[in-house]
Amino acid sequence: MKTRTLLFILFLTAGWESAVGAQQANDVTENHVRDLLAQMTLEEKVGQMTQIDFSVISVENGQDADNPIDQAKLDDALFNHHVGSILNTPTTPNNKAQPIEKWRKMTQLIRDTAAKTRLKIPVIYGIDAIHGATYTQGATLFPQAISMAATFNTELSEKAGEITARAVKASGLDWDFSPVMDIGRQPLWPRFWETYGEDVHLAGAMGSAYIRGHQGDDFAAADKAPTCLKHYVGYSYPLNGKDRTPAWIGERALREYFLPPFQAGVLAGAPTVMINSAEVDGMPGHANYHYLTEILRGEMGFSGFTVSDWEDIIRLYTRDKLAASPREAVKIAVMAGVDMSMVPFDYSFYDLLLDLAKTGEVPLSRIDEAVGRILRVKLQSGLFERREPSIPVAGNFATADAQAVNRQAAEEAIVLAKNANGILPLSKQTRILVTGPTANLLSVMNGGWTITWQGDAEQWYPQDKLTLLKALQQKTTGKVTYVGGQRYDEEINIEQAVAQAREHDVVILALGENTYTETVGNIDSLTLPPVQLQLARAVFAAGKPVILVTFGGRPRIITEIAEQAQAVLLGFLPGMEGGAAMADILFGDVNPSGKLPLSYPRAANDVTPYDHKPMEAFEANQYRPLYPFGHGLSYTQFETGGLTLNKNSIALGDSVEVSVKVKNTGKRAGKEAVLVYLHDLVGSVTRPVKQLKAFKKVELQPGERQTLSFTLRPEDMSFIGVDKRRIVEPGEFEVMVGAETVRFNVLAN
Amino acid sequence: MKTRTLLFILFLTAGWESAVGAQQANDVTENHVRDLLAQMTLEEKVGQMTQIDFSVISVENGQDADNPIDQAKLDDALFNHHVGSILNTPTTPNNKAQPIEKWRKMTQLIRDTAAKTRLKIPVIYGIDAIHGATYTQGATLFPQAISMAATFNTELSEKAGEITARAVKASGLDWDFSPVMDIGRQPLWPRFWETYGEDVHLAGAMGSAYIRGHQGDDFAAADKAPTCLKHYVGYSYPLNGKDRTPAWIGERALREYFLPPFQAGVLAGAPTVMINSAEVDGMPGHANYHYLTEILRGEMGFSGFTVSDWEDIIRLYTRDKLAASPREAVKIAVMAGVDMSMVPFDYSFYDLLLDLAKTGEVPLSRIDEAVGRILRVKLQSGLFERREPSIPVAGNFATADAQAVNRQAAEEAIVLAKNANGILPLSKQTRILVTGPTANLLSVMNGGWTITWQGDAEQWYPQDKLTLLKALQQKTTGKVTYVGGQRYDEEINIEQAVAQAREHDVVILALGENTYTETVGNIDSLTLPPVQLQLARAVFAAGKPVILVTFGGRPRIITEIAEQAQAVLLGFLPGMEGGAAMADILFGDVNPSGKLPLSYPRAANDVTPYDHKPMEAFEANQYRPLYPFGHGLSYTQFETGGLTLNKNSIALGDSVEVSVKVKNTGKRAGKEAVLVYLHDLVGSVTRPVKQLKAFKKVELQPGERQTLSFTLRPEDMSFIGVDKRRIVEPGEFEVMVGAETVRFNVLAN
Repeated sequence: MKTRTLLFILFLTAGWESAVGAQQANDVTENHVRDLLAQMTLEEKVGQMTQIDFSVISVENGQDADNPIDQAKLDDALFNHHVGSILNTPTTPNNKAQPIEKWRKMTQLIRDTAAKTRLKIPVIYGIDAIHGATYTQGATLFPQAISMAATFNTELSEKAGEITARAVKASGLDWDFSPVMDIGRQPLWPRFWETYGEDVHLAGAMGSAYIRGHQGDDFAAADKAPTCLKHYVGYSYPLNGKDRTPAWIGERALREYFLPPFQAGVLAGAPTVMINSAEVDGMPGHANYHYLTEILRGEMGFSGFTVSDWEDIIRLYTRDKLAASPREAVKIAVMAGVDMSMVPFDYSFYDLLLDLAKTGEVPLSRIDEAVGRILRVKLQSGLFERREPSIPVAGNFATADAQAVNRQAAEEAIVLAKNANGILPLSKQTRILVTGPTANLLSVMNGGWTITWQGDAEQWYPQDKLTLLKALQQKTTGKVTYVGGQRYDEEINIEQAVAQAREHDVVILALGENTYTETVGNIDSLTLPPVQLQLARAVFAAGKPVILVTFGGRPRIITEIAEQAQAVLLGFLPGMEGGAAMADILFGDVNPSGKLPLSYPRAANDVTPYDHKPMEAFEANQYRPLYPFGHGLSYTQFETGGLTLNKNSIALGDSVEVSVKVKNTGKRAGKEAVLVYLHDLVGSVTRPVKQLKAFKKVELQPGERQTLSFTLRPEDMSFIGVDKRRIVEPGEFEVMVGAETVRFNVLAN
Repeated sequence: MKTRTLLFILFLTAGWESAVGAQQANDVTENHVRDLLAQMTLEEKVGQMTQIDFSVISVENGQDADNPIDQAKLDDALFNHHVGSILNTPTTPNNKAQPIEKWRKMTQLIRDTAAKTRLKIPVIYGIDAIHGATYTQGATLFPQAISMAATFNTELSEKAGEITARAVKASGLDWDFSPVMDIGRQPLWPRFWETYGEDVHLAGAMGSAYIRGHQGDDFAAADKAPTCLKHYVGYSYPLNGKDRTPAWIGERALREYFLPPFQAGVLAGAPTVMINSAEVDGMPGHANYHYLTEILRGEMGFSGFTVSDWEDIIRLYTRDKLAASPREAVKIAVMAGVDMSMVPFDYSFYDLLLDLAKTGEVPLSRIDEAVGRILRVKLQSGLFERREPSIPVAGNFATADAQAVNRQAAEEAIVLAKNANGILPLSKQTRILVTGPTANLLSVMNGGWTITWQGDAEQWYPQDKLTLLKALQQKTTGKVTYVGGQRYDEEINIEQAVAQAREHDVVILALGENTYTETVGNIDSLTLPPVQLQLARAVFAAGKPVILVTFGGRPRIITEIAEQAQAVLLGFLPGMEGGAAMADILFGDVNPSGKLPLSYPRAANDVTPYDHKPMEAFEANQYRPLYPFGHGLSYTQFETGGLTLNKNSIALGDSVEVSVKVKNTGKRAGKEAVLVYLHDLVGSVTRPVKQLKAFKKVELQPGERQTLSFTLRPEDMSFIGVDKRRIVEPGEFEVMVGAETVRFNVLAN
């Protein structure tokens, strides 16, 4: 039996270093926090921990009012209840994106009012800007996270973060409830697409890049804003696939698969964390002292503040019956480690916490701790210094540059999964029949959190953006015919589609999902809606080549269709430029380079991740998704080879340098993401068959070759051992890139 | 916040009492064990821990030989390798049930040979007698566990255990690898039907009753035999549904849902435990010291021996790479707590363990501990005293009494899920078309582990048992026409079925699954095979009333068919008498009384158990299976009411007596299982909406009423608390029976 050596303080050390750095830079901030705490009344403190929805300060039908804020309500919020935070867009009758100038006025009114309070503590205004500034009209709206992950391009994620921060700040807003750091391994979950997919490393890398772009080195900068890691932790893995339902994860899998992306986000400097609305291993996220305090603070070194998700503290009583009263719910949540309550519709949290503090049931030390964290982030965000929108609209919002980045992101997000006989790209003379429910809608490419919560208000989408159909029409000189309803719920005339198919050279069959998020998006089966299967079968019967294009947040089962189609393009949620990008790929103006950040399942009950255990591919068991993780074709060919390591054996705690060459051996320029996998051959806990540990994306001209270098660090070789601590074990490892495998040894010290 | 009081030694106490009882009764045994250990060589000890497959001692093609044992090989096994145990039926070319006289001769040869060894330690012969003596020709083969659970009749389970033990002993066999105590909450799992379904209490109650019947008060009795709890623990809950793949359960859910049935089995006296072939939370069952030693021994008080599953020790190397060599695999498994290795095909385990013991890598104390446990069970089983088959065949095997119990079990196992307009029972003059792949096969009613491993050798099934079709033909005076192949894989002529449907009064449409177990039974979707859906749709189009009958181990999705059918009978795996029982129910000669031991899913990705958490039925989320847990109709009506408790409040640690009246308000005699659910209204860990805690089945004549009493003990009120220990919390509880609910309070002491 091999000698084992522990590196169990790995994460803690990293967190500690980060905390030390923060400490040195922020003595001024710390003094300011202390001064404020010393001056604040208990009421003012409890108010800081209270976050209310916009509706609480809104006039009736605020959504369409010129000035949606009811000053008396705002005064009540800030002078009587001392609220520390407001969120959301005006929501009556539904929520809806607002013009940017209106946002600036609304938030200015709040800033001005806050400036009149006794201690002039600014409100921090939070918003779900999950793929750009969702709730500001005309914002640049990027591919959603699952598609951003498919780019395997961290630079794009960083730029998206940068552009989103500018849009948020230009809107007069302060704080972005993004990115989602939970991994996506439950494809039924209606927020699957808000994740960066199934891989631990990819999620950490894409999310960290987003945070870097969004916050820069110092999110006090005028064009930077704080991010929020969500939803800590395990929300993404509901057993039955429904939103806000229990996950069973266990302590080892939690540490192996779910904590690392959050740890990456903490190290990247995210100062806020939003909490899992559901429960893990029997304990609701908002009551989980072990997760919120022992792990997040004690192990991961997080020093910012935590915020509840929507109404989730009171739900410890109304839903979970963990508490026997609303008052007990507040006590449990605050004592578990929730610093701010997204209440959101009333002052119940404020009243109850005030009373709990007065009776001593919640100690003042805990209140001061939470308030201190909140004030610190407000100070670090520069909110005390700037009492007006920190940047102008012009040059910071919906710029041509931002649109170009968005277009590139959409182009790199789309995955060419199949291209039989090189049917793609199509000539621009091709006669094309376009049919299917996702062909002529912008919403299906954007998903939830787009203009509205559910993202389904097609009528409010920008008129200048192109659906797939409109993009095809715009780009071709050939005949493009469309058979299909204008809305997702309008039935398609199948007979007409079949008749038209016979009159065209190819059929572009656009299938997938309508938009949704949260419980609204629950489904009972991963299969496609039957009407889409019927349409597909009828179209195939017409005998013309079919190109399947899919949009939607989840990998719905397309096996039967994909097998018959000549080509398959998986769009997921490529954002506002998705139609233009997809058309460019179909015609070859853009060479596709997206790769799957998930294992695309072959059947409804056959979901296995690529980094499965050996027993999942042993004897009769196999990993055989329709398309594996990392799959994605190009119009050119790449050869990856010459994989070498700088050492065949290293000491425990050392790193290995990996070198590999990638060459464009085809006839056109293209981009290729090179993925580096590691496999620990023997472990005291079963090890996955392989795990992604590094990747780089390069653009190569025909014939061009590049040598890529990667470093595999001890962390990359580590796993969660028998005693649930992170360790590295000496022994043999395999590095896998493309078709090549090279081994190295970690020697016992 | 309410006061909480812990009862954390609950299980440990119970286990300890049991151990004390065993201790007092077995001083003689303990002395005998000590004497033997003192005399045994290391080789003899390691041999005791070795279990080999029959093939190791078999002549070629032993399956059909008169004397399948190769004496030289047997001598090698017993004299040179000192093997302690043999398992399985002759397996070349496939395994197959053998005539009982042949079994007696084969096992006698083994007994005689063992009697010639130095210390005359008997071999313990183990067999998979999971629903009767699987591998003895003509044995009474009961409903499989999932169907036995549907009877909600513990007396039947006890009788099945009693009859199985007699059949095993009459066959000269010693030890039964049964019952499965893992709960069935993953319907994809190809061994789902080997469980007693999704409920913790039901599984514990049915399994314990089986053990009581099988072992009596003392399994040294001539007609009793030791049982084996399997597969400890969590094997039943693979994440992706495939056999022998990882489960994520976590420590709390393990203790809340998975350990209690095993604990019940230990308390019922099962002296052996078989180990989970897969892994839980990253650790293979056979390497899990925490489960096998700390929990099973330290907490649950198990004092018998553990046996590996098939080849599973070496698989720690070949499959899991937990070990760097076969030798390390043996060391890891033995040190984790595996006492006996089902090697099964060679002496590698013997050789490797011998070497490990000689070098001291496995201490002698551990060897002595394991061997002591094995010897103890052999002594307790009376194997040292009886050197011949302990009971005769006549009166002990396939008796008329046994068959009658089996028939009753099948009758009570079948679930009438729907009976629109009282279409059932059918008159015996009805003209019936019978069609569908499960109508005329015995195998589909028996499942795996029937005559052969996969149970699919229809040609070897007893000729005197009735398929559904044959039973219908035998029982009716009306016209019965059959359209369908003789084998499962023969296509049914759909056109002919439709044409014939028009000529008959009703159609009995028999759908479901072919037989399978283990990885062979893996599926990718819970939906029915498409050809069955096609047949169903065509038959419905004929316009005649359709009665859907299903057989098979898993709840395959039948929603579309069940909604159109007039009646639905869910057969699952009712055993050899299933055809006769189903026909009797269809014609009304038997009044159905089975209830579902599972939540029958409505769609492929919508699996939620009945004892879900509140958040699973909150707002847009709902528990809406096609048929809920406990669902099952009768041809008469029962009224349950007058629910009362003996106290409205009790002290912590006290019990509550529940009383409820049940009355047959219909026109014919019938049986009714009354289910008592408990709901802890507020808990420091979220509590299920309800949990089954007691049940009783009664037979009532028309108009007859009975008052039933139940005791709810502190254990029933307990759960696994924040610190992962079992506790009872003071507070309000709800008792639910039928439509009534009554509350009581547990007071803080």
